[in-house]
Amino acid sequence: MQSITLKVEGMSCNHCVNAVEGAVKKLGATGKVDLNAGLVTVEYDESKVTVDAIKAAIEDQGYDVVS
Amino acid sequence: MQSITLKVEGMSCNHCVNAVEGAVKKLGATGKVDLNAGLVTVEYDESKVTVDAIKAAIEDQGYDVVS
Repeated sequence: MQSITLKVEGMSCNHCVNAVEGAVKKLGATGKVDLNAGLVTVEYDESKVTVDAIKAAIEDQGYDVVS
Repeated sequence: MQSITLKVEGMSCNHCVNAVEGAVKKLGATGKVDLNAGLVTVEYDESKVTVDAIKAAIEDQGYDVVS
Protein backbone atom coordinates (compact mmCIF):
# COMPACT_ATOMS: atom_id res chain seq x y z
CA MET A 1 0.00 0.00 0.00
CA GLN A 2 1.06 3.52 -0.77
CA SER A 3 -0.01 6.78 0.76
CA ILE A 4 -0.13 10.22 -0.82
CA THR A 5 -1.33 13.56 0.49
CA LEU A 6 -2.80 15.96 -2.05
CA LYS A 7 -3.51 19.66 -1.67
CA VAL A 8 -7.04 20.26 -2.93
CA GLU A 9 -8.80 23.60 -3.35
CA GLY A 10 -12.53 24.21 -3.13
CA MET A 11 -13.58 21.80 -0.41
CA SER A 12 -15.81 23.86 1.87
CA CYS A 13 -18.16 21.62 3.84
CA ASN A 14 -18.98 18.10 4.91
CA HIS A 15 -20.79 17.47 1.64
CA CYS A 16 -17.50 18.14 -0.10
CA VAL A 17 -15.74 15.73 2.25
CA ASN A 18 -18.27 13.05 1.36
CA ALA A 19 -17.97 13.75 -2.36
CA VAL A 20 -14.18 13.50 -2.35
CA GLU A 21 -13.92 10.52 -0.02
CA GLY A 22 -16.68 8.76 -1.97
CA ALA A 23 -14.96 9.31 -5.30
CA VAL A 24 -11.70 7.91 -3.93
CA LYS A 25 -13.52 4.93 -2.44
CA LYS A 26 -15.03 4.09 -5.82
CA LEU A 27 -11.48 3.56 -7.07
CA GLY A 28 -10.90 0.99 -4.33
CA ALA A 29 -8.72 3.36 -2.31
CA THR A 30 -9.28 5.10 1.02
CA GLY A 31 -9.35 8.89 1.23
CA LYS A 32 -9.39 11.06 4.34
CA VAL A 33 -10.07 14.76 4.01
CA ASP A 34 -8.70 17.42 6.34
CA LEU A 35 -11.16 20.19 5.53
CA ASN A 36 -9.40 22.98 7.44
CA ALA A 37 -6.03 22.22 5.86
CA GLY A 38 -7.44 21.48 2.40
CA LEU A 39 -5.64 18.16 2.29
CA VAL A 40 -6.69 14.71 1.12
CA THR A 41 -4.64 11.75 2.27
CA VAL A 42 -5.18 8.65 0.17
CA GLU A 43 -4.05 5.12 0.84
CA TYR A 44 -4.04 3.00 -2.27
CA ASP A 45 -2.70 -0.17 -3.82
CA GLU A 46 -0.26 0.97 -6.48
CA SER A 47 -0.82 -2.24 -8.45
CA LYS A 48 -4.51 -1.32 -8.85
CA VAL A 49 -4.81 2.45 -9.01
CA THR A 50 -2.61 5.31 -10.15
CA VAL A 51 -2.10 8.71 -8.61
CA ASP A 52 -3.35 10.23 -11.85
CA ALA A 53 -6.63 8.31 -11.50
CA ILE A 54 -7.00 9.54 -7.91
CA LYS A 55 -6.39 13.14 -8.96
CA ALA A 56 -8.85 12.79 -11.84
CA ALA A 57 -11.54 11.36 -9.58
CA ILE A 58 -11.21 14.32 -7.19
CA GLU A 59 -11.21 16.84 -10.03
CA ASP A 60 -14.29 15.18 -11.53
CA GLN A 61 -16.09 16.18 -8.34
CA GLY A 62 -15.34 19.81 -9.13
CA TYR A 63 -12.22 20.45 -7.03
CA ASP A 64 -8.72 21.49 -8.02
CA VAL A 65 -5.78 19.28 -7.08
CA VAL A 66 -2.97 21.81 -6.79
CA SER A 67 -0.14 19.60 -5.56
CA MET B 1 -48.93 31.27 -3.05
CA GLN B 2 -46.66 33.13 -0.69
CA SER B 3 -43.00 33.98 -1.03
CA ILE B 4 -40.46 34.52 1.71
CA THR B 5 -36.73 35.20 1.61
CA LEU B 6 -34.67 33.83 4.48
CA LYS B 7 -31.10 34.70 5.44
CA VAL B 8 -29.26 31.43 5.97
CA GLU B 9 -25.71 30.99 7.26
CA GLY B 10 -23.37 28.15 6.44
CA MET B 11 -24.21 27.43 2.83
CA SER B 12 -20.86 27.17 1.11
CA CYS B 13 -21.11 25.12 -2.08
CA ASN B 14 -23.44 23.58 -4.62
CA HIS B 15 -23.93 20.53 -2.42
CA CYS B 16 -25.36 22.89 0.18
CA VAL B 17 -27.64 24.43 -2.44
CA ASN B 18 -28.93 20.97 -3.31
CA ALA B 19 -29.41 20.04 0.34
CA VAL B 20 -31.43 23.17 1.11
CA GLU B 21 -33.47 23.22 -2.08
CA GLY B 22 -34.14 19.49 -1.71
CA ALA B 23 -35.33 19.87 1.88
CA VAL B 24 -37.72 22.65 0.87
CA LYS B 25 -38.98 20.61 -2.07
CA LYS B 26 -39.83 17.72 0.26
CA LEU B 27 -42.29 20.06 1.98
CA GLY B 28 -44.02 20.66 -1.35
CA ALA B 29 -42.55 24.16 -1.68
CA THR B 30 -39.97 25.60 -4.07
CA GLY B 31 -36.70 26.98 -2.79
CA LYS B 32 -34.06 28.93 -4.68
CA VAL B 33 -30.69 29.56 -3.08
CA ASP B 34 -28.51 32.59 -3.76
CA LEU B 35 -25.23 31.19 -2.53
CA ASN B 36 -23.23 34.43 -2.67
CA ALA B 37 -25.86 36.40 -0.80
CA GLY B 38 -26.69 33.61 1.65
CA LEU B 39 -30.37 33.88 0.84
CA VAL B 40 -33.07 31.30 0.25
CA THR B 41 -36.25 32.42 -1.46
CA VAL B 42 -39.13 30.03 -0.95
CA GLU B 43 -42.48 29.99 -2.70
CA TYR B 44 -45.06 28.02 -0.78
CA ASP B 45 -48.77 27.42 -0.36
CA GLU B 46 -49.62 28.88 3.04
CA SER B 47 -52.57 26.49 3.36
CA LYS B 48 -50.16 23.54 3.23
CA VAL B 49 -46.87 24.57 4.80
CA THR B 50 -45.79 27.02 7.47
CA VAL B 51 -42.76 29.28 7.58
CA ASP B 52 -41.72 27.51 10.76
CA ALA B 53 -41.70 24.19 8.91
CA ILE B 54 -39.57 25.68 6.14
CA LYS B 55 -37.10 27.10 8.65
CA ALA B 56 -36.95 23.77 10.49
CA ALA B 57 -36.31 21.85 7.28
CA ILE B 58 -33.38 24.12 6.41
CA GLU B 59 -31.97 23.94 9.93
CA ASP B 60 -32.28 20.15 9.89
CA GLN B 61 -29.78 20.21 7.04
CA GLY B 62 -27.26 21.84 9.35
CA TYR B 63 -27.68 25.52 8.49
CA ASP B 64 -28.70 28.49 10.60
CA VAL B 65 -31.70 30.54 9.57
CA VAL B 66 -30.84 33.96 10.98
CA SER B 67 -33.74 36.03 9.66
